Amino acid sequence: MMENIAEKSLERSSGEIRKMSFAEPHERSSAGVHFASQVPKWDIQEVAVCGPREGNPFTEHRIRGCFYGKNETVEAEGFYDGEGRYLVRFMPSFEGEYRFEIRADFLKEAERGSFRVLPAEAGNHGPVRVADTWHFAFEDGTPYYPVGTTCYVWELQDDSRIEETLASLKESGFNKIRFCIFPKHYDYNLKEPRSYPYEGTPMDSSVLTKENFWQYAGKTEGNHWDFTRFNPAHFRHIERCVAALGRLGIEADLIVMHPYDRWGFSGMTKEQDDLYWNYVAARFSAFHNVWWSLANEYDLLKKKTTEDWERYAQILCEKDPYLHLRSIHNCASFYDYSRPWVTHCSIQRQELYRSAELTDEWRERYRKPVVLDEIAYEGNIQYGWGNITGEEMVRRFWEAACRGGYPQHGETFLNPDEVLWWSHGGTLHGESWKRVRFLRSILEETPGCGLAPRRREWDEVCCVPQRETGERICSYYLFYYSFMRPSFRDFYFDEDTPFEAEVIDTWNMTVEKKGVFSGHFRVELPGRQYMAVRLRKAEL
Amino acid sequence: MMENIAEKSLERSSGEIRKMSFAEPHERSSAGVHFASQVPKWDIQEVAVCGPREGNPFTEHRIRGCFYGKNETVEAEGFYDGEGRYLVRFMPSFEGEYRFEIRADFLKEAERGSFRVLPAEAGNHGPVRVADTWHFAFEDGTPYYPVGTTCYVWELQDDSRIEETLASLKESGFNKIRFCIFPKHYDYNLKEPRSYPYEGTPMDSSVLTKENFWQYAGKTEGNHWDFTRFNPAHFRHIERCVAALGRLGIEADLIVMHPYDRWGFSGMTKEQDDLYWNYVAARFSAFHNVWWSLANEYDLLKKKTTEDWERYAQILCEKDPYLHLRSIHNCASFYDYSRPWVTHCSIQRQELYRSAELTDEWRERYRKPVVLDEIAYEGNIQYGWGNITGEEMVRRFWEAACRGGYPQHGETFLNPDEVLWWSHGGTLHGESWKRVRFLRSILEETPGCGLAPRRREWDEVCCVPQRETGERICSYYLFYYSFMRPSFRDFYFDEDTPFEAEVIDTWNMTVEKKGVFSGHFRVELPGRQYMAVRLRKAEL
Repeated sequence: MMENIAEKSLERSSGEIRKMSFAEPHERSSAGVHFASQVPKWDIQEVAVCGPREGNPFTEHRIRGCFYGKNETVEAEGFYDGEGRYLVRFMPSFEGEYRFEIRADFLKEAERGSFRVLPAEAGNHGPVRVADTWHFAFEDGTPYYPVGTTCYVWELQDDSRIEETLASLKESGFNKIRFCIFPKHYDYNLKEPRSYPYEGTPMDSSVLTKENFWQYAGKTEGNHWDFTRFNPAHFRHIERCVAALGRLGIEADLIVMHPYDRWGFSGMTKEQDDLYWNYVAARFSAFHNVWWSLANEYDLLKKKTTEDWERYAQILCEKDPYLHLRSIHNCASFYDYSRPWVTHCSIQRQELYRSAELTDEWRERYRKPVVLDEIAYEGNIQYGWGNITGEEMVRRFWEAACRGGYPQHGETFLNPDEVLWWSHGGTLHGESWKRVRFLRSILEETPGCGLAPRRREWDEVCCVPQRETGERICSYYLFYYSFMRPSFRDFYFDEDTPFEAEVIDTWNMTVEKKGVFSGHFRVELPGRQYMAVRLRKAEL
Repeated sequence: MMENIAEKSLERSSGEIRKMSFAEPHERSSAGVHFASQVPKWDIQEVAVCGPREGNPFTEHRIRGCFYGKNETVEAEGFYDGEGRYLVRFMPSFEGEYRFEIRADFLKEAERGSFRVLPAEAGNHGPVRVADTWHFAFEDGTPYYPVGTTCYVWELQDDSRIEETLASLKESGFNKIRFCIFPKHYDYNLKEPRSYPYEGTPMDSSVLTKENFWQYAGKTEGNHWDFTRFNPAHFRHIERCVAALGRLGIEADLIVMHPYDRWGFSGMTKEQDDLYWNYVAARFSAFHNVWWSLANEYDLLKKKTTEDWERYAQILCEKDPYLHLRSIHNCASFYDYSRPWVTHCSIQRQELYRSAELTDEWRERYRKPVVLDEIAYEGNIQYGWGNITGEEMVRRFWEAACRGGYPQHGETFLNPDEVLWWSHGGTLHGESWKRVRFLRSILEETPGCGLAPRRREWDEVCCVPQRETGERICSYYLFYYSFMRPSFRDFYFDEDTPFEAEVIDTWNMTVEKKGVFSGHFRVELPGRQYMAVRLRKAEL
């Protein structure tokens, strides 16, 4: 029943320069300059320019473009893509005629051209933006409820695994995925990645064992990289994966740095870091579905300071013309989410016992969307962060969702091939993902743009929807009882407002209609865990 | 399989004055004075004196005794027991010869007598005392691990229910029970109690419904009590129940005041309160198995101040010669457990999500035994405090126990007759009590006097036993994994110390031997929740 998505996307964008462009067919403004004559809104116009190969094109040359439409003027940095090919990418946000000018130190004069922006393709609603303080919406106004997962280096596995992952993602209903640009070194992650971001050679990984791999974490010995020369194939491949996700309606939450490293990528100099951040911004900003996660577990990158993170953020703010969502993910200590460049919280729970339960505190503290990017993983590995039950994962989802936050999924089941969803993608083995998809369907049925916690009894969670104006919609209530098992609950409304009551079994994924009630009424419940009650103003 | 315990105890102690005494046969020092010629250690010598019936004997007369043995001299207050009968009770703590003197305003001269104290009866280890800061032991040195339950007014039900409760308690393995001297008014508790503590008549309870009972809470209208005249039958009956518990090896954690009242017992004057506290102390102090719980949910008794509680505590300190354990139980705010008269914490959890998990913080804060007297009830009633699963109850038990605390049980299952264990006793319907009994057996197999939390990984709980000297016994480790499901765990000890490893399934109540290991070793686990690992130094 699955389309062969990966294959399609790989076919579409792999190979020669002609195929690397994101819109067909190509115009040619002059010898050695290629671009598309028309491109859908929120898709990518890629202007390819031939230029010098000698010396170090990554550091010695600069190319930039300016794109002019009736409603916007966008300046975009270009980058060297190898083999004498320089690219400038642009994501148009409006339909109609555009013209552009490309300037580079190696061009005697600006290259110019024009193209037409067509209506967005079906399913492309534009980049995700913050809506009403705590929520999200696509640029076209469609509400977006992030229900995502994490597969740290799924895109650095072999083609068949990538294809398997994309098929799993399509079935799963996830609409966001977090993953890394750099490869990952950690338990269950000792193999070589399919490619490296730099020219050079890695340390000999045959010395690694499950016992000694810790000793190599953060070390640079044995690696030989030229941190001034990127490997464009590494990035092109990731871009194909981002594009494939985009076609599935999935946001790509790109983790730009992370500490689980044996190659020295986490310990570069300030100049090397800045070169990397500029390159990443120039390559990925034009993808409508990109989010920036400055780091996974930033606080474990012991060589980086707050000044470094703030500088990286500044690069993104200056070099990403589309202002994609930006955050940074903690291990122990939260980054200061109140910093203006942080668009939303990207939280790893800080306690063993409470995670989702703290959502409303975090909402109030930061007044930004609260995305709980790690609330432990459903699984059975030896580490406490990776062995909760499906039931507990789903419970955390509902706890967070009904407090107006956005919990995210992950899975770590032992596997003879050491293919764990959390890092490698592949196939989902747990029980929670289906229930997460069910929750997404409940959220998408809800009016407004997101849920707001409401004053409630001490032993329940209650929320109401919120409009983009901030107004609360008081004709709709969702109550959640978590691990508690009430056999009934009493409700007190005024006599004049009839509500249709439904009992939602969040684990068995059923919605049972209980009738229409008003005033003081009782809703019978099955005395099981994980039940919710939905009250919606009845149409009379 | 159950002995008819209640009947036996009722038969033994009900009826005439002769049978109310706790030791047989009776001596007579003079006309109208009765006592036992011999009494086992930690049992009760009760001296009965005939006195005036006219006026108000509860307020107008005072009787006291002084008991002299080789190793102790004890002054004990007596009390009026109705029908011209005045009693002075004494619990001897040593074997051998004793003599006594009884003085009363209505006696021209002291009544004197002597008796012999025999060895304690089998199973009577004396009162429970605090041992090694955080733990308990009986006075004879036997470690005591409180594994209790709550049945607030089990003793105020009819005889057959009481008998059923005692049989359930015997099977359950609980060794402590919390219950109230005053009757209880609350949802599921609207019937009349079997007796009242005062002379008078109660309000008409036929007006009460499940909807309106809240309105009567704390009200006094319709009640007609003489708060200066106790109903001795009420107290005698409770004493029989305390004695029956004692014979089962169960401590009686007596709740002296509580807020769930429609009779006005929670709203008496200072003088009336003091009369009550003195009467209670005089009647119950000589029972070896009494603990004092000054109140259930003291903070809901809005008319009582800290000064009141401190004064009640002072009465107990002065009038209970045996210094039984004393605490006070909260609803929301803890009482100041650092007060010198508080022997141990009697905690109701303050959060919906964490309870047992905070045990080590409370241990450190108060440096007293941490008894978690309410961590929610296994059940399915509508209130969030009364509808957790058996699994979650048992999880909280292990979490607290492995942090060196003492979690306690409760059960609230809906029942057509509204007989809920939590208030009425009866029969246990849940799944947790058997696992609690299993935990008690694990604790009683443990060397030392209690468990002390040990430095541990962030995702496990670990403890070692502690001797009465405070010394930690490092040849024994208990690890608990709670809701996490590790498929294995690695342990690092020195190569010279072999440990026998066992996997304890705390829910299925199995102990599986895994072999003897030393140095770095791995213990395989079944990847299920609620597992523990016990490591004990192997005998070579």
